[in-house]
Amino acid sequence: MAGKRADRSTELEVVAGNGLLHRRALLGNGILVAGAAATGLGASLTSAAAEPLKDGPWSLRPGPPIPRSQTPSKFEKDVLRTVDNPNNDPVNSRARTPHHLLKGIITPNGLHFTICHGGVPEIDPAQHRLVIHGLVKRPLVFTLDALARYPMVSRIGFVECGGNSAPLFSNEAIQDNVQALHGLASCAEWSGVLLSTLLEETGIDPKAKWMIAEGADAPHLSRSVPVAKGLDDAMIAMYQNGERIQPGQGYPMRLWLPGYEGNMNVKYLRRIKLTEEPAMSYYESRTYSQILPNGKAYRFYFLQEVKSFISSPSPGLTLREPGVYEITGVAYSGTGRITKVMISADGGQSWGQAALQDPVLPKAFTRFRMAWRWNGGPAVLQSRAWDEGGNMQPTRAQFVAARGQTTKPPSVLAFPSQHFNAITSWAVDKSGSVKHVYA
Amino acid sequence: MAGKRADRSTELEVVAGNGLLHRRALLGNGILVAGAAATGLGASLTSAAAEPLKDGPWSLRPGPPIPRSQTPSKFEKDVLRTVDNPNNDPVNSRARTPHHLLKGIITPNGLHFTICHGGVPEIDPAQHRLVIHGLVKRPLVFTLDALARYPMVSRIGFVECGGNSAPLFSNEAIQDNVQALHGLASCAEWSGVLLSTLLEETGIDPKAKWMIAEGADAPHLSRSVPVAKGLDDAMIAMYQNGERIQPGQGYPMRLWLPGYEGNMNVKYLRRIKLTEEPAMSYYESRTYSQILPNGKAYRFYFLQEVKSFISSPSPGLTLREPGVYEITGVAYSGTGRITKVMISADGGQSWGQAALQDPVLPKAFTRFRMAWRWNGGPAVLQSRAWDEGGNMQPTRAQFVAARGQTTKPPSVLAFPSQHFNAITSWAVDKSGSVKHVYA
Repeated sequence: MAGKRADRSTELEVVAGNGLLHRRALLGNGILVAGAAATGLGASLTSAAAEPLKDGPWSLRPGPPIPRSQTPSKFEKDVLRTVDNPNNDPVNSRARTPHHLLKGIITPNGLHFTICHGGVPEIDPAQHRLVIHGLVKRPLVFTLDALARYPMVSRIGFVECGGNSAPLFSNEAIQDNVQALHGLASCAEWSGVLLSTLLEETGIDPKAKWMIAEGADAPHLSRSVPVAKGLDDAMIAMYQNGERIQPGQGYPMRLWLPGYEGNMNVKYLRRIKLTEEPAMSYYESRTYSQILPNGKAYRFYFLQEVKSFISSPSPGLTLREPGVYEITGVAYSGTGRITKVMISADGGQSWGQAALQDPVLPKAFTRFRMAWRWNGGPAVLQSRAWDEGGNMQPTRAQFVAARGQTTKPPSVLAFPSQHFNAITSWAVDKSGSVKHVYA
Repeated sequence: MAGKRADRSTELEVVAGNGLLHRRALLGNGILVAGAAATGLGASLTSAAAEPLKDGPWSLRPGPPIPRSQTPSKFEKDVLRTVDNPNNDPVNSRARTPHHLLKGIITPNGLHFTICHGGVPEIDPAQHRLVIHGLVKRPLVFTLDALARYPMVSRIGFVECGGNSAPLFSNEAIQDNVQALHGLASCAEWSGVLLSTLLEETGIDPKAKWMIAEGADAPHLSRSVPVAKGLDDAMIAMYQNGERIQPGQGYPMRLWLPGYEGNMNVKYLRRIKLTEEPAMSYYESRTYSQILPNGKAYRFYFLQEVKSFISSPSPGLTLREPGVYEITGVAYSGTGRITKVMISADGGQSWGQAALQDPVLPKAFTRFRMAWRWNGGPAVLQSRAWDEGGNMQPTRAQFVAARGQTTKPPSVLAFPSQHFNAITSWAVDKSGSVKHVYA
């Protein structure tokens, strides 16, 4: 196919090195579109006359009946999470979100990341109870039916494993895609009852400073959470993107602590005990403790700090020809709203500001976008995010200086592996292939 | 189970008749919670000591492995769409969203409503083309790959069939639930390319006033859309809640016209032809034309006007005992944002203002909530919405006066059945059961 191409490339306003275009090009004023036709997109276009419309078989006879629950097209059968423990050996299991294949800010329920420490329990909601006890005035137990009577709230927000992006602690750039590197973060609309509502019911002994949250699955994962978070925005989440929360996200309920380290958001939640001191549980002392360069463990590191990564272009998504592309990805911060995302196409030498897609919500994925004209030469793509707390995503050099790196495979037990939030770099080579680099 | 109940009901601030409580009760100040314990919720609560925590089998051994695509719990197997043409007879087929079982504003992809006129086509995206031609300066054809290069946008918004709520045109209240009555509306995050971006590519002949949009499925459903809408917020939607759009919603792409009648949002979109006049297609002349009381057809009735309904309590969700409940539902308007939702528990004699859940987005579902103390007597629950255009959801009497009603079963062909947006009433009787009434 070869369509006519109007040369309107002079209308493109370059804002930073190696082809970054003015972000107004993303807002529908047509500059990008004209430029795109002139600089690459045109090769995929042609006049309608050159390729007459053909009826596929789906245009000639009725399709199958509407199912009671819709599933994706059979042509999307490879849009799946990757799982690292398919035989369900008695260790952790992870399923990672395929960010390179998704758009927007909502992660569909089938593709939300999951980490389980003892498989995915099949809990009968009629038998499940949530107990709040310890340093409270009135210990209470709640059935699902009882919780359904309370006022609910809904909120769109992310959950991220503390170990997301752990491969980037390696001192050499591990060759893998965005799903493998950053797939342990997802974003959904959660609905449930604020924990503060239930704590009003139970009352709180003034001595209580911590809450020990425990799951009903076999490992009984438990974590210590400051009572202050329980009185702030903590939610007993029972719904995910409208429907009941998924088994991999804690069915029938999880503790959701917006912006806090993933495993603190205890799934299959059955018990919250208010205490004076933290429990120093396995999951907060032996694991999920950031190892610092001096060899000490950085315990009770709650916050998932400001972060971003480019989901497209990214490894596996090859650029077929020079021309205009959209650089897009997600930014998020446990502190609050994203205020700015800057993009570089030259490995950080120059930066242009990306467009942020409305709505920009606190502690939620924010989709960013920028137009980029690839000239067919080498490029290194980076994104860097800022949040409303004034925090800036660190460079890799800054991050490594503070947190360390390792020549060993990152491991939650023996090496630094937690809370990586530095800049990720994707290198585009002349063939248009994309790979992970340190730049 | 019988827990102690503190009598703090005097803290409840009544704002309207028959038990509507101040909306601050929904904002976490604890008034509702205290009141709930005093007035009904307490019966579902007990001290933890009275019912020792028991381990279910899921607490004693590991669960199954994490699947590559997560599906809902087996205990939620009945949370499904209802389908009215399971044998795929050669007529329309509908699948309705179970609003009474959902919370929040996002409809999960498996449960989004679907209407197909020839089954659900299985379109190979590699063979699919979108052509824009007619009164344009340069007719163009777009592959999926070509569209992927354009700047995208994401937006959370509803789609509603023009025939949603058609049973409410009956002159007697049809006994069914909210899924049957209002299940042809859903809300998702859509991502794709603005049509205006593509029309910049093709250019527009100034004579063009309409666009004829046509689907690639066997019925080749086509509708005429004003070019002005194409230059406004119309989107070529390719993603739904992050992943590729579902087969029931138009895979691999649909035309999304925020706020406009459902079937104008042409699914399986393969062609947009710009013209001077509308096509007067089957789907806009014989069907989907509102029949007015004078027997004339009200054609080209695009807008889905301001509307709301209560999803809980609703028919099938029985109140087990007197006490405090949350009244919740969704409001939406094709004009823009919802500005206010009022609730009545006495059939419209008095009204209290509901809390609106953030974010309140234009042309999207808005979740509303209000606390209500059911005293065990009869009640009639209603919701009424306002939008930022100053439009108010009509009463049934107002609506029927303008649009008519029928003693015959509502039918898209012969009787008024389109664009019902009046107030819905749910009657609660002394047994706590809920049914549809006209009030």
